[in-house]
This record gives sequence, C-alpha cells and structure tokens, in this order.
Amino acid sequence: MTEIAREDYRDAMARLGAAVSIVTTDGPAGRAGFTASAVCSVTDDSPTLLVCMNRASSAYVSVTGNNVVCVNVLSAQQEPLSRLFGGKVPARERFAAAVWSTLETGAPVLAGCAVAFDCQIANVTTVGTHDVLFCRVVALQTGPTENLIYLGRAYHSVRARHS
Amino acid sequence: MTEIAREDYRDAMARLGAAVSIVTTDGPAGRAGFTASAVCSVTDDSPTLLVCMNRASSAYVSVTGNNVVCVNVLSAQQEPLSRLFGGKVPARERFAAAVWSTLETGAPVLAGCAVAFDCQIANVTTVGTHDVLFCRVVALQTGPTENLIYLGRAYHSVRARHS
Repeated sequence: MTEIAREDYRDAMARLGAAVSIVTTDGPAGRAGFTASAVCSVTDDSPTLLVCMNRASSAYVSVTGNNVVCVNVLSAQQEPLSRLFGGKVPARERFAAAVWSTLETGAPVLAGCAVAFDCQIANVTTVGTHDVLFCRVVALQTGPTENLIYLGRAYHSVRARHS
Repeated sequence: MTEIAREDYRDAMARLGAAVSIVTTDGPAGRAGFTASAVCSVTDDSPTLLVCMNRASSAYVSVTGNNVVCVNVLSAQQEPLSRLFGGKVPARERFAAAVWSTLETGAPVLAGCAVAFDCQIANVTTVGTHDVLFCRVVALQTGPTENLIYLGRAYHSVRARHS
C-alpha cells in the first residue's frame, strides 16, 4: 500500500478534536510536565488510560524515571497553561504559573482543572518516535465541567450541559 | 496503592471530552462498524493512530480478521449515526443509514464525515477488557471542519475557526 505524507497526516489530524491535558510527574527523576492531546481511556477494569509521549520531549527522562504521572485535563480558562507547557520554557517557570497539590503518587495535580487522573505507569509500548504509556489510575480529582478542546489548530471551549 | 472504583473512573472519564468516530471494516471476515471515542494519533513517522476496542464488541471478529479499519471522525450533524453504531442494531441496518465509499483498504468510508483515516492494523496490544489497535494510515479523506464532541455524557458541536 502507498504511504501518506507526514504533512498530509498532520493536516488530517488537525480535524480530529481533542481535549488538552497537562501531564506531570515528580519523584527521584525530577519534576516535569508537558501538554498532551493524545490521551484516552483504555479500560475501566482495572481503570487504565493511555498517554502518547514523544521520546524527544524534555519531560521524557523524568516521566519514565519516576514511573508516575498525573493527567490534568484542562478547563476552558487554562489555555495559557496549555501554551506554557507546550513551549520551550524550563520546568521551574512552567510550574510557577499555577497552583499544584498531590494525591497518591506525588505527581503534581493542577488546581482548577476539569479532572485529574493520578496514575502509576503499568506498561510502555514504543511506536516510532513515541512511547505509549499505559497508566493505572490510583486517585482522582474533579473540578469545572467544561473542557479546553483543540481542533483546527485552535482552542475552543466546550461546556457540559449537566455537571 | 489503592484501586479506584470503576464507577468513579467512568464518572471522571465523562469529564474528558473526545471526538466521536465510527470505526469500520470490510473483507473476508465481514463488514462491521462501531462507535468509538478512544482514538488518538501516535506518531507521524510513519503516520500511525490508535483505537481502543472492547473485545466484547460485535465488530471484534471482523476487525481483527480483516486487519483493516477506517476511522471516520464524525461531523456535528452525524450524531444519529453515532447512536446507531453504538447501539444494538445489526450491521446491515447500521450501514443502510448512510452513504459509504472505499479508499485503499476496502473498509467503508463515510460520506460527509470530518476526516476519514483508512488504515492497516500494524500491531495489537491487549489491556484488560480491551485491545489497542495500532493502525498505519494509508489513505485520507477530508470533509466539513466541525466535530461532534462527546463530553459529560452528551453531544456537542465544535466548529474550527479556520478550514
């Protein structure tokens, strides 16, 4: 079969809307965090989600060294944090821009996010440039019911009709 | 660490908005399709996405037997198709409700969807009740720039500001 061009693939993927999360970690391998839109549920038995992570990410060594992450799903007003954690500024400056706590694993939990999934990494599968992290959810925090959605290379706000 | 309750996990996952897709297949193992929201990009080198699929799905035998899928990302007006392919009606009735074509693999491509990713399944990883299908994208079709987004157990429409 033919192989499609990477640019055509990226343009097509821009048409698949997704919630925006900040994935954080902390522990012996250091505190780090990055913006991710490739996050989804895998199974509720046992509760497991996945995160796709570029192995070239500045957070990669910390995430895989600590083996824990918190997936903080952003609420609509947290667009500036999405840009900050998707950019080039150092981890210290990123984390200084928001209020954080912890749940079970010690990974930073973002105040005011739509929902936070505190996780232990159970398995990792490598696919090309990326690692797929399979994460067992060990604690939860919920917040506002609206989401920051990225579609068409722009941010949108979507509010749940029922909380 | 403690294990969280499945119901608490599902309630938390309802706060993570996602685009809605109909994942289809056709070939020697039969034509089938199901509604999925656990779809995301893995890497653009080579272009690969993933789909999480319950092994109890009525489409499971056909999908794994044919080893090809088309991920049809729904546009806002295709909410009735999402309900139909997420329900209990037989495949024949599901497919009769829309217009389909094919690209490279022979998997059904939905007319009027936001974007269709025609794929060969390259690898499968089993996690609990689900299989994670790693799918190499071999052809694309694009349509309207708005998405049907599922958040808070309800459907929403999100329109890209630029096409």
